[in-house]
Order: sequence, then C-alpha cells, then structure tokens
Amino acid sequence: MQRWNVAITGFGAIGRTVAGLLLQRQARYAQCHGADVRLTAVCGSRAGLYAPDGLPGPHGPEREAMRAGLTGEEFIERTNAHVLIDAGPTDYETGGAAYGYLRSALSRGVHAIAISKGALIFDLAGLRALAAANGVALKFSGATAAALPTVDLIEHNLAGCRVLKVEGIFTATTNYVLSQMMDGVALPDAVAQAQQLGMAEPDPRFDMDGWDTACKVTLIANAALNANIALNDVERQGINQITPRDIDGWKAAGVVPKLIGEIVPGEHGVRATVTLRTYPREHPFALVGAKMKAISIQTDAMGDVVAICRTSPLATAAAALKDFEHILMKR
Amino acid sequence: MQRWNVAITGFGAIGRTVAGLLLQRQARYAQCHGADVRLTAVCGSRAGLYAPDGLPGPHGPEREAMRAGLTGEEFIERTNAHVLIDAGPTDYETGGAAYGYLRSALSRGVHAIAISKGALIFDLAGLRALAAANGVALKFSGATAAALPTVDLIEHNLAGCRVLKVEGIFTATTNYVLSQMMDGVALPDAVAQAQQLGMAEPDPRFDMDGWDTACKVTLIANAALNANIALNDVERQGINQITPRDIDGWKAAGVVPKLIGEIVPGEHGVRATVTLRTYPREHPFALVGAKMKAISIQTDAMGDVVAICRTSPLATAAAALKDFEHILMKR
Repeated sequence: MQRWNVAITGFGAIGRTVAGLLLQRQARYAQCHGADVRLTAVCGSRAGLYAPDGLPGPHGPEREAMRAGLTGEEFIERTNAHVLIDAGPTDYETGGAAYGYLRSALSRGVHAIAISKGALIFDLAGLRALAAANGVALKFSGATAAALPTVDLIEHNLAGCRVLKVEGIFTATTNYVLSQMMDGVALPDAVAQAQQLGMAEPDPRFDMDGWDTACKVTLIANAALNANIALNDVERQGINQITPRDIDGWKAAGVVPKLIGEIVPGEHGVRATVTLRTYPREHPFALVGAKMKAISIQTDAMGDVVAICRTSPLATAAAALKDFEHILMKR
Repeated sequence: MQRWNVAITGFGAIGRTVAGLLLQRQARYAQCHGADVRLTAVCGSRAGLYAPDGLPGPHGPEREAMRAGLTGEEFIERTNAHVLIDAGPTDYETGGAAYGYLRSALSRGVHAIAISKGALIFDLAGLRALAAANGVALKFSGATAAALPTVDLIEHNLAGCRVLKVEGIFTATTNYVLSQMMDGVALPDAVAQAQQLGMAEPDPRFDMDGWDTACKVTLIANAALNANIALNDVERQGINQITPRDIDGWKAAGVVPKLIGEIVPGEHGVRATVTLRTYPREHPFALVGAKMKAISIQTDAMGDVVAICRTSPLATAAAALKDFEHILMKR
C-alpha cells in the first residue's frame, strides 16, 4: 500500500472537521485506493504537531500537544507531507499565511488543497503555474461553494461542452438574509441571526456587499473557464440597500430575490457580475432556501444543468476531501 | 499529436448526432488534449464504411457510401479503432448486436462507450470484467439519463461520501405524460403526443410500466454503488393505472406526481424500486417539467445534492462524448 502523509495548516473548526473526516475514512482509502493515509502533521498560527506515524483518530490532537513555533516554512520543511490541506484564515490583500503554505508545499512537490479563498484570489495564476512546474495538483473545491459542484461540474460532468453562461447562488449568508427578510425579519436582525449561526464573517460587509460571491465567481471563471480576471473586474452589487418596500413589492409580484453571481464567456474574455435578481416561484432558484446554494450552467450541447445543495462546515470539509480523493484516483 | 480513431456502430438519429458533434469538436480535441481525433468507421445493421484517414465532416457519411456486410465482428476487426461508440438498437433479452460489438471491442483493447442500455442490462458485470482485463474503459453516461449527471455525480463530485439514498426522475416519457395529465390531457392522448415527439419507444409500455426507469436504476446501482442487481430485482410500478380521479385529488392537495427510481444501499445490498410518488410544490422535483430529468443524492457528509437538466438527442450525444473526453483526459 502506498503511504500518503497529510498535513493540515489552520486548525480551527474547519481544520478539525477535515481531520476528523479524514481519520474516519482511513479504512475506505485503503480499500478503494490502496492508500495508507495518515494525518501526520497539523498546525495553527503559533504551534504545530508532527507525528511521523500519524496522529491517532478520530478527532486529531488537542491544542496542548502542539509545539510552539512549528509553523510556517519550518512546518512544511520538516513534516514530509504528500498532501497539504490549508484551512487557515483568509487574507485577500496579501494571501496571508495560506499563500506561504501553498507556495512552499507546491514548490516542494507536495499536492495542495485550499479551503480558504484569500491566497487563491491573491494569486491563483502564480499558484497554478507553481503546481504545474512541480507536477502536483492544486485543488480548491472547498473554496468555491463547498458541497456545491462548480469547477468540477464544468470540467467533468459537462466535459466537451461550451459553457454559455454560469449563474449561481454562491453565498450562504446573503441567501439566508434574503430568505429571512422575505419572512418579515428586518435586515439588521437577519444579519445578526446569520452571525449567531456562524454563517456570516465577523465583518458581515464582506458577504453583504457581494464580495464573497465575487470571489467565487472569480475563482470559477479563472479555474474552469480559462479566464484571467481579478476580483476588482467583477461588477458588484450587494443587498444592504434593500428596503421593506422592495420586499413588499417582490411579495406582491410573487417573485423571490437572490444575490446572483454570473459569468458570461464572450469573444473578448468573460463578463463577471454580482447582481440582485428576482425569480418567479417556479424557477429552481426560487426554492433555494436559507443554508442552500445553487448553480445553473447553460451549455451548447447539454442545455441547462442545475445543481442545488445544502451547506455546512461538514460539507466544506467533505469538499476538500473530494479533492483529496481525486488526487488519489489520479495516481 | 496522438491519433484517436473513433468508430460508431448504429448509425440512426443518435449515431449521426454523435458523429456530427465529434467532427465539430475536432479542433477542440487537438487544442485541449493534443489528440488528433478521426471518425474512421461507422456501420448500421447491414452496411458499414471504413475510411482510414477519417470521414469528412460535419455530418458524416451518407448511407449510399456504405459497403454492405461491413458490420459485426468484421467491422471491429478491420477498422482499427481506439474507441467504439455504440448507438445501436437496444435488446434487453440477449444484449443484441450491441453486446457483440462491445465484447469484441473490449477484448481487442478498444475503449467502449455504450449509449443504448440493452447490452449493459444483459451483462454489465461481464462487460466490466472484460474492460478491466484488457485495460480499457467501458463508459455509458448516455445510457443512464443522458445529460443528467448520475454515475459521474456519485463517483466524482461526491467522491469519498457514503451514499444513503438516490432518488430520481429518470424517464422523459413518463414525466412528460404525467405533466400533460396534470394539465388536463387524457392518458392515451399524452402517450400519443410523447410518441409524436419521438420521446416514447415505439412500444410505450416499456416506459409506461416503469421498465425504463428500472433499467437506469439497475445501471446506476451496479456501476456507482457496487451493487449486483438484475433488472428483475427492481420492485416496479408504472403509471398506466392513473385515473382522472387521481389527477383531481393531487391537484386539490397541491402536489405533483412523479415516477421515481430509488436506490437505498443497506447492509444486505441495495434496495431498488420504481414508484409513483407525489411531491409538494416547493420540492425541487415538482419543478421538473416535461422533457426534464432530475436526481437527488443523499450523502453522509455533503447532505442532499440535487441535479436537474433538460433532455434531448443532442444532450444524449453530448453525454457519450463526455465519456470520450474522460477517456482522453486519463491518457
């Protein structure tokens, strides 16, 4: 059996969920892929742990067991991982620590799976070039709407088709807030609820102003549609300006508001937008309630394909491990 | 550039659509996969054509150009294909000509893509063993609900997850007939319309009695869920017994009837059924109108994932060429 050492950087709620799921699936990896998968290293922002034979299951190590300073370059250098999964905090300005982890993993021939979006938005092209130069994979299903198939739907299930348009509900927070507002909750209260549910970022403006959707649109366009757009190229609208009168009008008209990320490939590159739209009740998007996401892809030969799913921290972890599974399948 | 010779057996409407789409995508294959793809041979039930350098586009050959007798074993032997796409008629009793074509291709190390279901229902296990023994692929997206991702959705997009239940609207005819009946059309008239639209088989009982859905359920269970069931293991219900009174009752209750194929994996193998079910209007399946198909997959870690798409002969051809694309990607 081939040995696969997995390291996780960023060991908060998502990192721990990934660790738990990975350890829970060890027998499956052996059976389905002939792979002896070990979680050999984890680190947070200040301390890390390296166990050459693998950490015990099912939940991974406690914080107390970690060694101060085993982070950053040293962590990647010393831990001999075959695959790095980054679940650290996101930083759109500089790529943050995640950018350093991904770069040093890829340049050492370590496959990398990113869950947070910051480093990918900061320099996807650079990271992809580094992966290609070192013959390893860079994957990020967890960053592009989690359990919702997006990049893989275009690349795999629609392989061969020309994509004419991508349209999606990619941000849980805005979808939750809009759903609550349609149920009569005031905007600030709906935002507070989303924060209490751990859905919204601490600074909710990132979601509410459409930046989160714009990030996903950017990643999907660049990764699956050969675009080369920056976050600022996305025309963007948020949901902060919505008034109770808007809500009443939509109810009266029998339509449902959604914050939509859209990509339209054209002769001169893609046009990417984040827009507030309304859908009639018989449109599949109208059914995409709070805590759900959806994508609709219009193609030349397969018509429109729609996918809808729920979203949760476990689903995000499972999306990262879907990437891992694809790496196992390819080797 | 690597040369890829493609042969098509069964050259009716679907076979010709596949040929046209393949020829239309030649430049794309070269650009994306470094593959020099040629359509080098086609045959119907009585005659065939072999053009070692490739048939000209965009629609493939006319019937008159075909040579009588260039069919069957001789066709596979003489045409040096790397990939066979079978789009011939389906025969659930014996596998028919398709079974012979698939067996002789696979045993000669030729990748095979099946569009009709007969041979797969007759002996999927035998065909898969033959493919594995010869190190080639056997794929059949076109046989399991066309543009709707089914097997690939489970194997690729949900990789790593345990499937708890699969539920789907897999047959266009029954979905069309049920939709029309809810709009006030009598059952025999709705069936006649489906036949006029080229949707229903010449003998509509195959669709109406649930056999078509049962076939798809059998293939999905065996291909994606490691089951080993026969068509007759599927508990089956059709839609022929539906009365105007049923329709009135469903309308009054605000629900929508659908013929559902379902697979539930359990400790002692899978349970597969075809059942008439009703869904409330806010369920995604309620929106799946005439000429559409849908699947809902319940998983342990990613929750429920739903996919919905339209169905057409072009989409079926595109599904077969998705299989071809996956073969190109793997080499």
